Amino acid sequence: MKALVFRKSLEFRTDYPVPEPGRDEALVRVKLAGICNTDLEITKGYMKFEGVPGHEFVGRVERSEGKDLEGKRVTGEINIGCGECPFCRNNLPTHCPNRSVLGIARRDGAFAEYVAIPVKNLHIIPDSVSDEEAVFIEPLAAAFEILEQVKIKNSDRVCVLGDGKLGLLVGQVLSLTDCDLVVAGRHVEKLSILEKMGIKTEIVPAKAGARPSRGAFDIAVDCTGSSYGIQTALEITKPRGTIILKTTVAQNVAFDLNSVVINEITIIGSRCGPFHRALEAIEKKSVELRPMISRSFNIEDGVEAFEYASQKGVLKVLLKID
Amino acid sequence: MKALVFRKSLEFRTDYPVPEPGRDEALVRVKLAGICNTDLEITKGYMKFEGVPGHEFVGRVERSEGKDLEGKRVTGEINIGCGECPFCRNNLPTHCPNRSVLGIARRDGAFAEYVAIPVKNLHIIPDSVSDEEAVFIEPLAAAFEILEQVKIKNSDRVCVLGDGKLGLLVGQVLSLTDCDLVVAGRHVEKLSILEKMGIKTEIVPAKAGARPSRGAFDIAVDCTGSSYGIQTALEITKPRGTIILKTTVAQNVAFDLNSVVINEITIIGSRCGPFHRALEAIEKKSVELRPMISRSFNIEDGVEAFEYASQKGVLKVLLKID
Repeated sequence: MKALVFRKSLEFRTDYPVPEPGRDEALVRVKLAGICNTDLEITKGYMKFEGVPGHEFVGRVERSEGKDLEGKRVTGEINIGCGECPFCRNNLPTHCPNRSVLGIARRDGAFAEYVAIPVKNLHIIPDSVSDEEAVFIEPLAAAFEILEQVKIKNSDRVCVLGDGKLGLLVGQVLSLTDCDLVVAGRHVEKLSILEKMGIKTEIVPAKAGARPSRGAFDIAVDCTGSSYGIQTALEITKPRGTIILKTTVAQNVAFDLNSVVINEITIIGSRCGPFHRALEAIEKKSVELRPMISRSFNIEDGVEAFEYASQKGVLKVLLKID
Repeated sequence: MKALVFRKSLEFRTDYPVPEPGRDEALVRVKLAGICNTDLEITKGYMKFEGVPGHEFVGRVERSEGKDLEGKRVTGEINIGCGECPFCRNNLPTHCPNRSVLGIARRDGAFAEYVAIPVKNLHIIPDSVSDEEAVFIEPLAAAFEILEQVKIKNSDRVCVLGDGKLGLLVGQVLSLTDCDLVVAGRHVEKLSILEKMGIKTEIVPAKAGARPSRGAFDIAVDCTGSSYGIQTALEITKPRGTIILKTTVAQNVAFDLNSVVINEITIIGSRCGPFHRALEAIEKKSVELRPMISRSFNIEDGVEAFEYASQKGVLKVLLKID
């Protein structure tokens, strides 16, 4: 089958074997997939992953045991737990120590004609949701994870740091609460997507030390994707405030831990989230995803698509796999 | 008056002016004071403090406006807020941006014959509590702060990292819950204080990488006072677990922030705590403080006392100021 394969470098291949679904798994024919920053990091060696990347996708079930799923349009949750550890038994496969993760760890992903995935990970996409919207369910769920972790009050001043793909999604999700929200970033054209939706934004100049108001926010969300994000978040957060950490960076990060203690700051790491809430938000048109699509490529041009996706100013890049 | 004064170096002086209490303040004649790690850090330049250090003390009120306090044996909370900012109005003077802190920031402390302190910061010491116990109220309150911040369940596996003064107090306080507790440290003789109280301990060899069981704990409390503490805490904490950060170190600290995100760890900075809970625990004999006193010095020998307190293996050092 056609697939993008990473092994030292990214390659488009036509001879990659179709995956054989395991027990309780379905074979899904992929229609459309999204390139995420994690995919770009993988091509730099992140997670030491080798194989087919891709974890944001929509497709049709080609084959499954129960038959009733066959032909259905679906997307899927990306963590596959062992089913037996305390985390899996507690319905937290995202933290199973033996998990595989679609296109990220120990399991081929969705930048291919077919992907194999456990039936229980699948979510059926209603007709009212387009393919282009459906590929955003996974990253949108990651944005909704914040609302699972923190209670945001109407009176809270909240700052989202970063206007990349995740920053824009998080900004939209947090705007569904009635908090006093601002999204701070460096790109006028990206922030304008939120401005048009009535979400307050702030341009932060690219010089070191430039930041939104010091000590002003009850909650800061680091979506910068930069190792400087945490320090900025610390500087803009009030004593007893909360920092949600979405940024993962390859190297260890040094920052002023003293201020965490002195100001009794809470830092909460935040990763994958609830698919049903993301799907519901799309169905209700509570979020706008189309303005976030920069360009679509055919999978044959996948290597070029990755190069394009890694350029500054580019938002979501899609791969068509028909 | 007699006082220990830090200005580039620590000095014992007999000609230091008696402080003049401000409005709503009392003048307290100090009887006994404890040397804390923060005091040792101050003599290395921490907080750029100059003046009389000392914030753990017991004394008698010499003079106060209301008269009813005069002659009473007291200790005092160390943060003095402006009284007008949102934090002060919210009864959180510990986080007032304009606060002074006794013997730590912008206000002389208790290593002197007299200290001036707002009346509202004072706590009267009941007769059943000895002077030696009373000087522990401030650090013991800092240990109790953890219980204000986190709900610890009986089923929680909790590890306190560090067997210094604060680690031993935190171990005792957390043992008042019914969690599955272990205190990990490097000093047999210090840990034996807890062992005698029936608290489980674990010797961690001083070699790099030695640590209690990986990923085993729901809650880890970093009382190591070392920049390596946070990384060890991260390694021993379960996904979705909580790290309480008590350690302050002068330099910025580099550690693996990715694992905070991937494992959705919560890190909570923890500082000053509730005096009334500490006092109550001492009155009820729920904690044992005397075994934690290494030695007492007269204030005249205060410089020697600081040198002694900074030696490895030494726990609480007291200064007598009669």
